[in-house]
Amino acid sequence: MASIGLSVPPGLTISTEACREYLLNGKKLPDGLWDEEMSAFLGDPTKPLLLSIRSGPAISMPGMMDTILNLGLNDELVAGLALKSEDRFAYDSYRRFLDMFGDVVLGISHCSYEKKLENLKDTKGVDNDTDLSASDLKDLVEEYKKIYVEVKGVEFPSDPKKQLELAIKAGTAVNIQCMVFGNMGNSSGTGVLFTRNPSTGDKKLYGEFLINAQGEDVVSGIRTPQHLDSMKDCLPEAYNELVENCKILEAHYKDMMDIEFTVQENKLWMLQCRTGKRTGAGAVKIAVDMVNEGLIDKRSAINMVEPQHLDQLLHPQFNNPSAYKDKVVAMGLPASPGAAVGQVVFSAEDAEVWHAEGKHVILVRTETSAEDVGGMHAAAGILTARGGMTSHAAVVAHGWGKCCVSGCSDVQVDDTGKILVIDDLVIKEGEWISLNGSTGEVILGKQLLSPPPLSKDLETFMSWTDEMRHLKVMANVDTPEDAATARKNGAQGIGLCRTEHMFFASEERIKFMRKMIMAVTPEQRKAALNVLLPFQRSDFEGIFRAMDGLPVTIRLLDPPLHEFLPEGHIEDIVSDLTAETGISQEEVLAKVEKLSEVNPMLGLRGCRLGISCPELTEMQARAIFEASLLVSKEGTTVHPEIMVPLVGTPQELENQVTLIRSVAKKVFSETSSFISYEVGTMIEVPRACFVADEIAENAEFFSFGTNDLTQMAFGYSRDDVGMFLPTYLSEGILQTDPFEVLDRKGVGELIKIAIEKGRKAKPSLKVGICGEHGGEPSSVAFFAEAGLDYVSCSPFR
Amino acid sequence: MASIGLSVPPGLTISTEACREYLLNGKKLPDGLWDEEMSAFLGDPTKPLLLSIRSGPAISMPGMMDTILNLGLNDELVAGLALKSEDRFAYDSYRRFLDMFGDVVLGISHCSYEKKLENLKDTKGVDNDTDLSASDLKDLVEEYKKIYVEVKGVEFPSDPKKQLELAIKAGTAVNIQCMVFGNMGNSSGTGVLFTRNPSTGDKKLYGEFLINAQGEDVVSGIRTPQHLDSMKDCLPEAYNELVENCKILEAHYKDMMDIEFTVQENKLWMLQCRTGKRTGAGAVKIAVDMVNEGLIDKRSAINMVEPQHLDQLLHPQFNNPSAYKDKVVAMGLPASPGAAVGQVVFSAEDAEVWHAEGKHVILVRTETSAEDVGGMHAAAGILTARGGMTSHAAVVAHGWGKCCVSGCSDVQVDDTGKILVIDDLVIKEGEWISLNGSTGEVILGKQLLSPPPLSKDLETFMSWTDEMRHLKVMANVDTPEDAATARKNGAQGIGLCRTEHMFFASEERIKFMRKMIMAVTPEQRKAALNVLLPFQRSDFEGIFRAMDGLPVTIRLLDPPLHEFLPEGHIEDIVSDLTAETGISQEEVLAKVEKLSEVNPMLGLRGCRLGISCPELTEMQARAIFEASLLVSKEGTTVHPEIMVPLVGTPQELENQVTLIRSVAKKVFSETSSFISYEVGTMIEVPRACFVADEIAENAEFFSFGTNDLTQMAFGYSRDDVGMFLPTYLSEGILQTDPFEVLDRKGVGELIKIAIEKGRKAKPSLKVGICGEHGGEPSSVAFFAEAGLDYVSCSPFR
Repeated sequence: MASIGLSVPPGLTISTEACREYLLNGKKLPDGLWDEEMSAFLGDPTKPLLLSIRSGPAISMPGMMDTILNLGLNDELVAGLALKSEDRFAYDSYRRFLDMFGDVVLGISHCSYEKKLENLKDTKGVDNDTDLSASDLKDLVEEYKKIYVEVKGVEFPSDPKKQLELAIKAGTAVNIQCMVFGNMGNSSGTGVLFTRNPSTGDKKLYGEFLINAQGEDVVSGIRTPQHLDSMKDCLPEAYNELVENCKILEAHYKDMMDIEFTVQENKLWMLQCRTGKRTGAGAVKIAVDMVNEGLIDKRSAINMVEPQHLDQLLHPQFNNPSAYKDKVVAMGLPASPGAAVGQVVFSAEDAEVWHAEGKHVILVRTETSAEDVGGMHAAAGILTARGGMTSHAAVVAHGWGKCCVSGCSDVQVDDTGKILVIDDLVIKEGEWISLNGSTGEVILGKQLLSPPPLSKDLETFMSWTDEMRHLKVMANVDTPEDAATARKNGAQGIGLCRTEHMFFASEERIKFMRKMIMAVTPEQRKAALNVLLPFQRSDFEGIFRAMDGLPVTIRLLDPPLHEFLPEGHIEDIVSDLTAETGISQEEVLAKVEKLSEVNPMLGLRGCRLGISCPELTEMQARAIFEASLLVSKEGTTVHPEIMVPLVGTPQELENQVTLIRSVAKKVFSETSSFISYEVGTMIEVPRACFVADEIAENAEFFSFGTNDLTQMAFGYSRDDVGMFLPTYLSEGILQTDPFEVLDRKGVGELIKIAIEKGRKAKPSLKVGICGEHGGEPSSVAFFAEAGLDYVSCSPFR
Repeated sequence: MASIGLSVPPGLTISTEACREYLLNGKKLPDGLWDEEMSAFLGDPTKPLLLSIRSGPAISMPGMMDTILNLGLNDELVAGLALKSEDRFAYDSYRRFLDMFGDVVLGISHCSYEKKLENLKDTKGVDNDTDLSASDLKDLVEEYKKIYVEVKGVEFPSDPKKQLELAIKAGTAVNIQCMVFGNMGNSSGTGVLFTRNPSTGDKKLYGEFLINAQGEDVVSGIRTPQHLDSMKDCLPEAYNELVENCKILEAHYKDMMDIEFTVQENKLWMLQCRTGKRTGAGAVKIAVDMVNEGLIDKRSAINMVEPQHLDQLLHPQFNNPSAYKDKVVAMGLPASPGAAVGQVVFSAEDAEVWHAEGKHVILVRTETSAEDVGGMHAAAGILTARGGMTSHAAVVAHGWGKCCVSGCSDVQVDDTGKILVIDDLVIKEGEWISLNGSTGEVILGKQLLSPPPLSKDLETFMSWTDEMRHLKVMANVDTPEDAATARKNGAQGIGLCRTEHMFFASEERIKFMRKMIMAVTPEQRKAALNVLLPFQRSDFEGIFRAMDGLPVTIRLLDPPLHEFLPEGHIEDIVSDLTAETGISQEEVLAKVEKLSEVNPMLGLRGCRLGISCPELTEMQARAIFEASLLVSKEGTTVHPEIMVPLVGTPQELENQVTLIRSVAKKVFSETSSFISYEVGTMIEVPRACFVADEIAENAEFFSFGTNDLTQMAFGYSRDDVGMFLPTYLSEGILQTDPFEVLDRKGVGELIKIAIEKGRKAKPSLKVGICGEHGGEPSSVAFFAEAGLDYVSCSPFR
């Protein structure tokens, strides 16, 4: 600020380099640092030079030294100061210095001083420190000096040179400045401000001010500060200069600034400025306004807005988070952001019924599974006792932009009793709770919500990011309705359409799916698949229509087949399935037992299904091709891309690609028509990365399934990671949940190997990612660096 | 053979190159091949030159052409031949040629000719073809020629040049030789022999011989051949020359040879020789004898014996596998080699009880778990309906050198009914079955067994391999008894001592293990661990004593804790545990539910246990250090190496190493003594390979856990792979089971990355492998190439 001509109290900076030399030198100050001339000013009672000492790193960081004001005072000097100004001011400065020096340099808690001050105010019967007289403050100084002896067993160092030396040694980079005084009566004061409103982004100074005060008074709550506007009246000249300075600083730093200033006897002094923190709404408005003002270009505007700013803008929020702090009864994982309020229900069926009755419900489950999807959709929010950030509940909720708190192990869920137990607290069905999916808080009662504050500025801002980005953004979508939402939200295609959810969409579908699974003869299996074919086809038709002109990547069936069976006791399952499929009890039991797996994640799933049961791949491929031809005839432009999951060897892909292409040929010849399509594969098994060159020979695209890749690279089951992940995060064994933030060292290396090998074998290979990491900012940064063509994530992300 | 001076019928070779050119040339013979001079001999009735045509590749391979003898004959020539020798011989040669030419060149099945011959013998009322007269054979020739027209619609090509051209085109590399005739009466004959006995290795010619016969007669079973010795009497000169030739050939090829020869009118002709196939016992004896004879050096001897030869020698075998072929009722996976015979039992308890009564039992289970270990040990063999080559049953059985057939999906096991169902067949408890663990066969009844034929030669041979090898060989061993066996079998230390099996070793141990797991308070947990400490300590003492002077690598607890709980219905488990631990039913139920996992392989196990529950690592480390100090004081030399399992991040290892070292310090100070020890880690999580450099900073050794590494690299659960592995192998998607033969492309790459990074960070790093791959020959070859220091496998392997 000094270099651009603003009034800053004179001073000097001891650099980080000097500090490093000091530490390396065995804590001796380097030669030449101790400037005789400078220290000569100190301790002269006729010319009382006081200093402020503050940490000076360019960026705020932990362990940074707090500011020390009024350094240079002692019993003799304070008298000199009093002569030159007035007693009250001198002793006020002295007691402040004793407090700050003790705290920062010797580690004597601030509270020790605070207590003495409070006692004194009580004794004197006053409310504010400004009401204390000079002689009160003089007494206080004596009390403060005693604290040094009591707490640390040392005398307060009265030599100003010693004071400076100790203060410098306590900091890293240190700024030493001559003091200016906001506590020199009513023509003085001190304040802080943002150059624009950090909540709304409005272009108006936003700050607070206190007459006759110093340093931390404004923010410490000792006195209630006044609105900055009040300064216009009491210190008009200083105020005008401040407004002018703010403009200069914004023009210089090209950003919204956070400023500290002091007025000493009507003269404005700038003490500090830095980039101001802001909310999501503020960030977007400031960025857009500054472009419109010609202050910055669009690229700078984009860099000015953090990803979490945008996330804030897209979900409902609690009006006043500080209001409910005492009603937080449990903490889970912040699995899907936003806020939700509703009445507690304990089953998916209840959620659907209550929702149909117009109620808002929170679905509470120990954990969710595919069968709960209907109820999850009906619920305003979801709370689970088990499961991590990428558990079924978390992933599904994220996909819908729905609030979810998962893995809340404080909570015990009693499905049958329809109660929720948190220590002594029992919450019954129908009671109201609120969830904060951004923090993991579970809150008693009905908290007030605000809808996401979508704005014209946001739209403008997003259009700029669209101009700049190289990565395409696709969406993970399973239904025509979600496809329409995704398209509205700007998706450039569907990067992952899971076909498994389609089988749960109605009673009839799941029934025939189960018939297919239970089939004893190939004829039974084919018959069941024939019933499913028109369902799949019509789903695809709807999605293709919604995505007219854009690519739709459809993944063949992936989960283990037992996920489609009913849940519960084996006896119930068998009798249900016997009734449903008409197959004998013995055969059903044998089938169910054969399907049960010790580690289903690593069992019969993905392309292993389509290889073991080619009729399934045939049916799905046929549904895709028939749907493509049908909507294409209506005039819709279709780009189907068929994706084979869980490939670990080139032979697996070759097997499935051969099958798919032969189905295509058959359908084309049956209908005497043709549509172009692509076949590719998920890369989600670590081994696939090492043979990506061979796999690429049969693939037109790769899509990284980073959820599975993370599971296998770490050996962590998403469903079970909750048992040790909290410990791992708290012990610092992991810095972040690798299912949330992509692990660069392991998973990232695998991805790089696969891209390099794949593109070497086939330079035209399209490469994307469709795991949940595709919506996580730092992971997206990695994907951009790694040279991916697109990311695909849930429509809301 | 011709080049070393033996009598070989003159001829020429058409090389593979010529063949390749023919194929590339659009199937035209290259210029210059068709030697006018040679073909001039053919078709001259006054000088009837006949040829043999045989495939000539250096190595036997599929699709190789069968031999054609007597090429050059036709109706005119046969008369000329008859003039020069005798009618019967001439027409015998002609009918043989028609058969072989039709079969090899035109693909007319040999059976077509065989039928005509049989009919003729029936009509004439004779048993042997030698009893047919010249005129019979003349008639047969006419019948044979008709077959050409009937089956292929072509006339037999009577032009000898055309015959030769067609025969050459049918082969790849082709040897064309002048015929010599074993069917020229009783001074002629033909035979095959091995230069040594291929079963026992005895240095004595071993072969068969037929007077007045040609070609395949010896091996085809048309006549019963005589023992080679009989030739000594009937053709003494030829016999003596043959014996001489065998010596020359062994000296030349430096191996046991498989030889074909023919005698024509007392003159010996050598037709073919190649390296002879042999049994394990034969291979070892031949190798050792040849070194003693000065024929080969030790390195050649080692290369002469295949790994599977040695495997044959170390397990009991069925006396006569061909005898039981019709009693094979099911096929499973050949999970652990050898043979076993016993009475069927369906529970581990029964196996122990029956075994104690002196019975031989085969334990039949759907799958086995840690609780079955006692019964598995008592059983002669193990049969499971589920699980792959590295399922629990397979790995444990392998470890003991015990026969096991796993994943036998043909079999339905009914535990409660105590029956085994294979289609319509029901096998009840107590019935006898036999298992072939080398083939996967399940055989009805009691088959005869031979014990492993251990020999002095084997010992000599193994001592030579010990001289040559760079890799150390360690053993995977969990008990003092097995440690002694391992040492006897030559183990140079223990590469993997699993601590989990120790907890199952007695009722009391498992009881306190369960108390530890069920513990509600830290005090309860510590109390249970305190009871377990002396058990662990005493196990370690026993193992240290057995391995005096050799390193013992102890792995900290690895499996998920629920593996230690009883099995069955949840109600039973809870009531059992409540009774056993004295903890309330509710608390037990909550604990059990908390411990249950969706994918236990990827859940709370390995070092995740020791990090979540440091008391466990503390107890195990204490047991190791206390045991080390104790036996060390007795004068035993102890080299304990503590191995931390399932490390995926450097922080995990650091956490556990810090804990282990602090326990060491405590124990050393308590006892005022000291012992040196090492700490290292398993590398079994794919991610660990990418951060191996950072991990190496805290590790003195790496041991690759290739089972887990394979599970995670492929995403295959060992327990569930049986659901699709058979399809994968039969469809050619995988060439071998990656749990049996190490996958070089994926898992091998991970291993190489880890070694490179690990040794770069710490050049002194010791690197080994302790998965079951450590005992599989082609995998061991990879480990040697990759520069490992040791392999560790079960004592029998």
